[in-house]
Amino acid sequence: MEITKFSIPEIIFGRGALKYAGLCAKRLGAEKPMVVSDPGLREAGWVSTLFDVLAREGLEWCYFEDVVSNPRDTQVAHGALFYAEHKADVIIALGGGSPMDAAKGIAVVVGNGGTIHDYEGANRVHRPLPPMVFLPSTAGSGSDISQFAIITDTHRHLKMTIVSRTLVPNISIIDPNVLATKPRHLILAAAVDALAHAVESYVSVIASPFTELQSLKAIEIIGRQLPLAARDPSPEVLEALSIASTAAGMAFSNASLGADHALAHSLGGMFDVLHGEVHPVLLPSVMRYNLEATLPKMAQIGRVLTGKDLRNDRKAALAGIDRLETLFASLGMKHRLRDLVPEPSQLPDLCRMAANDACLLTNPRPATWADLLGICEEAW
Amino acid sequence: MEITKFSIPEIIFGRGALKYAGLCAKRLGAEKPMVVSDPGLREAGWVSTLFDVLAREGLEWCYFEDVVSNPRDTQVAHGALFYAEHKADVIIALGGGSPMDAAKGIAVVVGNGGTIHDYEGANRVHRPLPPMVFLPSTAGSGSDISQFAIITDTHRHLKMTIVSRTLVPNISIIDPNVLATKPRHLILAAAVDALAHAVESYVSVIASPFTELQSLKAIEIIGRQLPLAARDPSPEVLEALSIASTAAGMAFSNASLGADHALAHSLGGMFDVLHGEVHPVLLPSVMRYNLEATLPKMAQIGRVLTGKDLRNDRKAALAGIDRLETLFASLGMKHRLRDLVPEPSQLPDLCRMAANDACLLTNPRPATWADLLGICEEAW
Repeated sequence: MEITKFSIPEIIFGRGALKYAGLCAKRLGAEKPMVVSDPGLREAGWVSTLFDVLAREGLEWCYFEDVVSNPRDTQVAHGALFYAEHKADVIIALGGGSPMDAAKGIAVVVGNGGTIHDYEGANRVHRPLPPMVFLPSTAGSGSDISQFAIITDTHRHLKMTIVSRTLVPNISIIDPNVLATKPRHLILAAAVDALAHAVESYVSVIASPFTELQSLKAIEIIGRQLPLAARDPSPEVLEALSIASTAAGMAFSNASLGADHALAHSLGGMFDVLHGEVHPVLLPSVMRYNLEATLPKMAQIGRVLTGKDLRNDRKAALAGIDRLETLFASLGMKHRLRDLVPEPSQLPDLCRMAANDACLLTNPRPATWADLLGICEEAW
Repeated sequence: MEITKFSIPEIIFGRGALKYAGLCAKRLGAEKPMVVSDPGLREAGWVSTLFDVLAREGLEWCYFEDVVSNPRDTQVAHGALFYAEHKADVIIALGGGSPMDAAKGIAVVVGNGGTIHDYEGANRVHRPLPPMVFLPSTAGSGSDISQFAIITDTHRHLKMTIVSRTLVPNISIIDPNVLATKPRHLILAAAVDALAHAVESYVSVIASPFTELQSLKAIEIIGRQLPLAARDPSPEVLEALSIASTAAGMAFSNASLGADHALAHSLGGMFDVLHGEVHPVLLPSVMRYNLEATLPKMAQIGRVLTGKDLRNDRKAALAGIDRLETLFASLGMKHRLRDLVPEPSQLPDLCRMAANDACLLTNPRPATWADLLGICEEAW
């Protein structure tokens, strides 16, 4: 085994855990934290619940919600100015992947200067960030666990991947109750994103025993819980999905991802597609592309998804892909690429962009832009 | 599920990872780290290898090796003075559980003042510690991962358990190569300690999905690797045991332990017994005591240890205990309590002391000192 690294935040997990946000921020030195969230969470009442928690700890705060789905470089710049103007000292993010990634981008610029574009790629963030406490409102992005932030470059119309150990928040407070006010389709999209994290990190060329364990556990839980979530996202289901998303976050943060996420980032950058909607369209085709390069692991995924101890590796692997396609079809989500991309003539540009994405480096089978085009044509 | 916490250090794992010790110390602000190790590791050459690594990073250091097996309060006090006299700024521990626990004790006193006795128990360490980089030389104690330190009180002849989140080192560098110079019996004793961590944390009353996953993985690996380690501790076996010990460390640090470790701490405090030698003697009897209180989990342990899909929970659980007893007997380690305790008349005092150990709080079946005496009499 190569030398491997494994880094995760301190985790506080459980229904009601939100109440620890103030204590955690204070432990990290907060006197005036900056809260980053979005209008949806404010309207659902969670932002004011968080304010109450902070007030009980005697904290003041400043509040920032200029964040959209697929958060933008311009919003990061705005947020960094806001942090400085308000003399904030800790960043608390409450939300899905978008507010959390925006908060990370703001932290990078606050701690390191310049603009977020200066830090695109791996390990380019060298100076410390303000302390971060993250409260995820979806069970999917894993941003509260990971060393990744994805920010849209509004000039180049692409998603920049910023990866650095310092982007791991100090504390992740995962309260499955916060998920309960999310619309059903967002819960499902997030769970499918977590499933893609788990599958891609499991077959990544830099997977380790520490990440593989988490990947498989997440695949097992999400495979079982997705149909239940589609029918009735009960507190128990939301808790299970949160456990799975956290496990998948531990895995992909340390083992990275693959071709599905490389393409997903390009799709999000070019067409502003909801990130979680991309995987039912792409993941099965990517898995078929990777099949021979990592057959024993693909077979293990198949065994976990079907719950069957299939002896033949190829049959087990194919049964897993079948099971996923059936599952995705049952969720009522889009499942052809033509539902997301306006014109087939745009596919070559999409694939050329994806071929430069950092996630492609760890795909178990190398892929040129033409290989990616083949995947997209199959998924069309 | 109750609200649960999960906290581990940043981990760098792999053969040759020792070479990152200087870089890691510098990242934590080191200019003059204090290295804590012991004569055995110095004689095996690892201490001078570490010095070379530090020198290559332009670091000065001071070196402390007044540490014995079952490290003492007096040594902690001595080490804290040493740190202050040498104006050290980071603590690097290289060794098994003893140097690592001594280093934690030193860090507590350096950061918080007083003597180590002031911090006995849970969550009594309130001020920050100097940054810590730990390099374990055995695959067992898990001290490089955990929030525990065990220090012997030389007046009261007992082991103090100190538990605090701040005792989790900043970085754990796990290099299985360092294990290769250890005598066979220490490798086995450490692996058995890790196995006890895994079993006890799995059935702990505060186990969570995050810890259970790690516990079971550690049980599976150690059950398979122990016989190989007894015959030929190859680099592959040492690597596997290191993975397992790390997983068990993640589990017990966050789920705590049980009656076996409560008794083990008393035995170590009263008779200065090697910690890893205690578990083959006690663990099977403790498992039988706990059987009915946590039958489905004991059955799962049995299935993992035997590799058999036994349907009946009680049969599976008992098969697991049988498998462990056979395994322990094959290792040539002591396996009756009378081999460790000079006189049976000393058992009541031993059990009264163990009844006050923090580890007993999380045992799945409550136990009075008289219950512990029953366990000891069975193991006699």
